[in-house]
Amino acid sequence: MPPTDLWLSEVYRGNTQFSLRVVKTLLREQTEFQEILIADTHAWGRVMFIDGVVMLTERDEFIYHEMLTHVPLSAHPRPKHVLVIGGGDGGTVREILKHDPEHVDLVEIDRAVVDRSRELLPFTADCLSDSRVAIHYEDGAAWVKAHAGAYDAVIVDSTDPVGPGKVLFEQPFYEDCRAALKPGGVFANQAEGPMFEPDLVRGIFRELGKVFPHCAPYMAMTPSYPMGTWCLGYASVDVSVEEARAAGRRAQRHLDTRYYNPELHGAAFALPTYVRNLVDA
Amino acid sequence: MPPTDLWLSEVYRGNTQFSLRVVKTLLREQTEFQEILIADTHAWGRVMFIDGVVMLTERDEFIYHEMLTHVPLSAHPRPKHVLVIGGGDGGTVREILKHDPEHVDLVEIDRAVVDRSRELLPFTADCLSDSRVAIHYEDGAAWVKAHAGAYDAVIVDSTDPVGPGKVLFEQPFYEDCRAALKPGGVFANQAEGPMFEPDLVRGIFRELGKVFPHCAPYMAMTPSYPMGTWCLGYASVDVSVEEARAAGRRAQRHLDTRYYNPELHGAAFALPTYVRNLVDA
Repeated sequence: MPPTDLWLSEVYRGNTQFSLRVVKTLLREQTEFQEILIADTHAWGRVMFIDGVVMLTERDEFIYHEMLTHVPLSAHPRPKHVLVIGGGDGGTVREILKHDPEHVDLVEIDRAVVDRSRELLPFTADCLSDSRVAIHYEDGAAWVKAHAGAYDAVIVDSTDPVGPGKVLFEQPFYEDCRAALKPGGVFANQAEGPMFEPDLVRGIFRELGKVFPHCAPYMAMTPSYPMGTWCLGYASVDVSVEEARAAGRRAQRHLDTRYYNPELHGAAFALPTYVRNLVDA
Repeated sequence: MPPTDLWLSEVYRGNTQFSLRVVKTLLREQTEFQEILIADTHAWGRVMFIDGVVMLTERDEFIYHEMLTHVPLSAHPRPKHVLVIGGGDGGTVREILKHDPEHVDLVEIDRAVVDRSRELLPFTADCLSDSRVAIHYEDGAAWVKAHAGAYDAVIVDSTDPVGPGKVLFEQPFYEDCRAALKPGGVFANQAEGPMFEPDLVRGIFRELGKVFPHCAPYMAMTPSYPMGTWCLGYASVDVSVEEARAAGRRAQRHLDTRYYNPELHGAAFALPTYVRNLVDA
């Protein structure tokens, strides 16, 4: 008898599906904020879905986490104090630690994401026990508002702008992020996919542009995020996009990475024309 | 009563699926060589599958066709005579015509692909009635062998290396392609996806490297090809990768494109580390 053919699917806007064949479902839990599902799959290793959306797969999470982290942090000469909003799985913190910071604050609204990641996703969450990392189970928007001038870098590793993540895509939050940066500080965020969410991408860069003198999208080829085409956002008060883009060429930190490299750092800011038109509109 | 929920899926190596919700299946035909399926979908417009694999979608075919064509042709000062192997849907020829060639030979082994594309895929196939285009229903490998020194550019727009497309990924064919180029000629090919077919990608560049003094992968974010991460191959006897890469900056042709642009031309050669490691191995 063949084994049960169990598939886990993310449905994009009702008409497209990305489906992973499952070895075993390990957890399905409704938290105070959202539904977490963790499963082992045949082709993607262990995966976490939140509210039906892929958050990470063991196979390709390095791509998103490296690009969200190393592009902004390489544009800062010495990122000592770093804030992560969201990112309870730990993947972004793991990458930040490669820059030898003094202190990382992780502000995750849903304690269950951190707890379950520690239990089931050691490849991203093991770093959370590092002594330089402090975890705060609080509302990220409130935390940022209360920490003006505290950080060299703020990284927003959020879910999509539905549910608790919605405020993280709005102008008041971006203003508080700007205020939370020290001079020379840098900001990056998860900025959605241009194929299925062009309006979201456009809105993110319109709002960022109202707040930061310098901001630009950059791209990563993220297989498990919709259609493998993903935008990230870079922003700063005083480090221009040109400076940030050139920073990859310094390559002084010899980061141990599997996707990011100094050449790709600058190349990631080259946008396909349809994405350029979207954010310039 | 809700409408029938009909899905068209490509299965990647048995454990991952990409599925498109179908409005209507227009054609399913077993030709002498392969099975062609053409359907209208909700999110992707009209699509063509061959042997269960996405060949193109109306929504995103511009990405693959632009990148396969404009990178090599921009590296040639004046591509007058261009050969396309495969590509019976016409998308690559459509892009080549933007460079104002004198003559384009399209060599497609399966006449049914051209005929059905003309009937059902006008957005790619309309260009095939251009007076500068000659279509030959022949074996591409034999054609190349018989046309030494005939072309400024050879573009291999093939299916995967199974069935009739297999020989198009082997050293003897690449040697004939090299011989088919005039001095200063350029070559490009469809070079598979590094996430699901790392061995194919590695093999393509190993074989190209045996034949061409200059060759390199470049990347495109192709939503409807597996995992949105696709390799294309550039090669030449006498135009170095550095020259080819810098050619985008000339930008003298003012191509009307939706993905390709002069900045992206060079950036596309920046490889993620895991792809670099694959082709350097």
